[in-house]
Amino acid sequence: MIQRPRGTRDFLPDEMEFRRNTEIKMREAARRWGYREICTPTFETQDLYTIRSGEGIINEMYTFEDKGGRALALRPEGTAAVLRMYVNEAKALSKPVRWCYLSDCYRYERPQKGRYRQFWQFGAELIGADTAEGDAEAILLADDILHAAGVTYDLHVGHLAPMRAILKDIPEDRKRIIMALLDKKNIGGLEETLDGWRLEELESSLKGLLEVHSTDELFAITGPIPEQERIEAMVGILENEDTAFCQNYGIVRGLDYYTGMVFEGFAENLGAENQIIGGGAYRLAHLFGGEDVGSCGFGIGFDRVMVSLGEVPAPEDTVVAVLYKKDARGYAFSLSRQFREAGFRAEMNLLERGIGAQMKHAAKTARYAVLAGEREMAAGTVTLRNMKAGTQKECSVAEAIRGVSEDWD
Amino acid sequence: MIQRPRGTRDFLPDEMEFRRNTEIKMREAARRWGYREICTPTFETQDLYTIRSGEGIINEMYTFEDKGGRALALRPEGTAAVLRMYVNEAKALSKPVRWCYLSDCYRYERPQKGRYRQFWQFGAELIGADTAEGDAEAILLADDILHAAGVTYDLHVGHLAPMRAILKDIPEDRKRIIMALLDKKNIGGLEETLDGWRLEELESSLKGLLEVHSTDELFAITGPIPEQERIEAMVGILENEDTAFCQNYGIVRGLDYYTGMVFEGFAENLGAENQIIGGGAYRLAHLFGGEDVGSCGFGIGFDRVMVSLGEVPAPEDTVVAVLYKKDARGYAFSLSRQFREAGFRAEMNLLERGIGAQMKHAAKTARYAVLAGEREMAAGTVTLRNMKAGTQKECSVAEAIRGVSEDWD
Repeated sequence: MIQRPRGTRDFLPDEMEFRRNTEIKMREAARRWGYREICTPTFETQDLYTIRSGEGIINEMYTFEDKGGRALALRPEGTAAVLRMYVNEAKALSKPVRWCYLSDCYRYERPQKGRYRQFWQFGAELIGADTAEGDAEAILLADDILHAAGVTYDLHVGHLAPMRAILKDIPEDRKRIIMALLDKKNIGGLEETLDGWRLEELESSLKGLLEVHSTDELFAITGPIPEQERIEAMVGILENEDTAFCQNYGIVRGLDYYTGMVFEGFAENLGAENQIIGGGAYRLAHLFGGEDVGSCGFGIGFDRVMVSLGEVPAPEDTVVAVLYKKDARGYAFSLSRQFREAGFRAEMNLLERGIGAQMKHAAKTARYAVLAGEREMAAGTVTLRNMKAGTQKECSVAEAIRGVSEDWD
Repeated sequence: MIQRPRGTRDFLPDEMEFRRNTEIKMREAARRWGYREICTPTFETQDLYTIRSGEGIINEMYTFEDKGGRALALRPEGTAAVLRMYVNEAKALSKPVRWCYLSDCYRYERPQKGRYRQFWQFGAELIGADTAEGDAEAILLADDILHAAGVTYDLHVGHLAPMRAILKDIPEDRKRIIMALLDKKNIGGLEETLDGWRLEELESSLKGLLEVHSTDELFAITGPIPEQERIEAMVGILENEDTAFCQNYGIVRGLDYYTGMVFEGFAENLGAENQIIGGGAYRLAHLFGGEDVGSCGFGIGFDRVMVSLGEVPAPEDTVVAVLYKKDARGYAFSLSRQFREAGFRAEMNLLERGIGAQMKHAAKTARYAVLAGEREMAAGTVTLRNMKAGTQKECSVAEAIRGVSEDWD
């Protein structure tokens, strides 16, 4: 038996419907903020990803060649392709650009529990609004989309400037190590490392960044920094909008990528893999040949959203099974059509079997059965049966449609 | 400047919205027939496609390896993966199975006009209903989906049995050549080939297959064949449902794949690439390790549907630009939220610029502008401006929302 490739998934109808319904809610929330959906190809030239992330990323991607011998890669994340598209289309666009997307992404790694080789990301990018208002909008938008999807989560908002200010005199290689330890909240490792380098004086201010509750507390640690006004404005907007969030200036999110505001969100019921969203401000367009333009955006782990929402609900639509004796087949096709036109899901019998076997099948699949025998065909009626209640009556087609609408039993 | 890979496309918001709206209509039409959406991975093991189509297909696919050294391929079409999924899940499924899908597919070829390396297919498969009713349902479903999308097209319905009956004594290699010529309606080539092989006596019956208007005419050519009753029943159902179609028993659609009913559709305004749908009855599950089960289905070229629908319509939602003086920023965020909650697309100014520059931008992007200065903030009002009419008034927030709802000018 041929199996699907390791690390991939098939989605059956109930789950797929749940995913589509959730996706529509997220897209609708984004639309109201002016973020409209775009779509880029599933694969891009490999350069796009190595320019952004270095050669190391090649080992984490599915790569192959096109007919011209160019190296291509299945997209490992959404942002780079969207910025590449922005650069290609920039001249015709009115700024700031607000875009969202639902992209399937691919990672070339050994399969692990809860980590798939094909996964979905719902992302948004705000390009050309390098302001506190832009930073705040990205966070509020993400929050709105996650709430529209039905997710409960904790939002952490930070900014890279305070940490960089504290580390401004530290050599680049050491800075990276310190920031990585902070990002993992590895306090023991941080203390040991700073002790080893005789940088004990940084300990209290760096650890303080993880425990800040207000911008006042933050700037008491860092002293005045140029980004102070922007950080205060952003935090002020979020507080003014009654957003539930905490400040966390220990967030790093990938070295060398983000340039200012950063944020993350963690869902309650996902165990160790509980990060459901990550984002921040960045500059990427100039790397792809465009103007240097400030951007911010985020990616929501769509598969984690679905896990977080819990059990797949039963589909809501009313299924009507259409059963018939062979001579009434044409009549049954027309009955089915009329139920469909009224919005119901009408499933006709398609097998050569008697009414009893058809009814048995309907009991497993439908809320109502509509039966067409020769008598019904001659009279222009149907026999309508409520499969759960076990009640039935003969009536006109219009009455049967009304009965199903009104949940007749 | 980094470009997208040759033969691929980016979709900007207006086009993407048109695609999404069309996709929803098609999915909804399928749902009413009981065809619910499933999703398979973008790549499969290469075997899946070579088992179905032979080794030749490798040159037409994007292939690469996974971490275990297994050969994978980006899906070149939708059906094989869906039947693979059916075989994997068969035990838990109640038959017949009705599934639909919207899959992006990939072809590894030199780019040509109107042919893309990544393209979309809307398909449906009916598995386990090997009857005239099943054949008819697949055709009626396809017709309903295309009409729901808004496409005008010509439907050709046929069956392979008559042609095979006429060619039953012809050796396999010659049969293939003859069938391929018929499929292309290459009458000159057909006559020349049959003359060369001294098979002139087949000419009139084979050419007759292309000109049949009724099943009576068909069986006058072939004489009695075992499939007669099934073909008559299928055609009878389509006629009874007033389906606009023509009979065409010269359709072949890929040698060795289809086993009975076959059908195709051609849109009016697509030039040479005008085939918008193709489908038929087939047997595939047993090749993938499942039971031998009769199936039928079809694939609709989603990109061709979109071309056939013509110009991308302007989006219908009402855009409200929210403009503000710096001190009223918090008030403006809250106004935007209220307009969003009322269902509108509210786009806030995010740049540091005066009201004049904000208004100029709004004139390009919005139907209404809502202006929040210090006076409005103090009074709890807004200035509402209809950007097209150039009229404006100061009013309460609730009144402004009502005004936008009622298209105030």
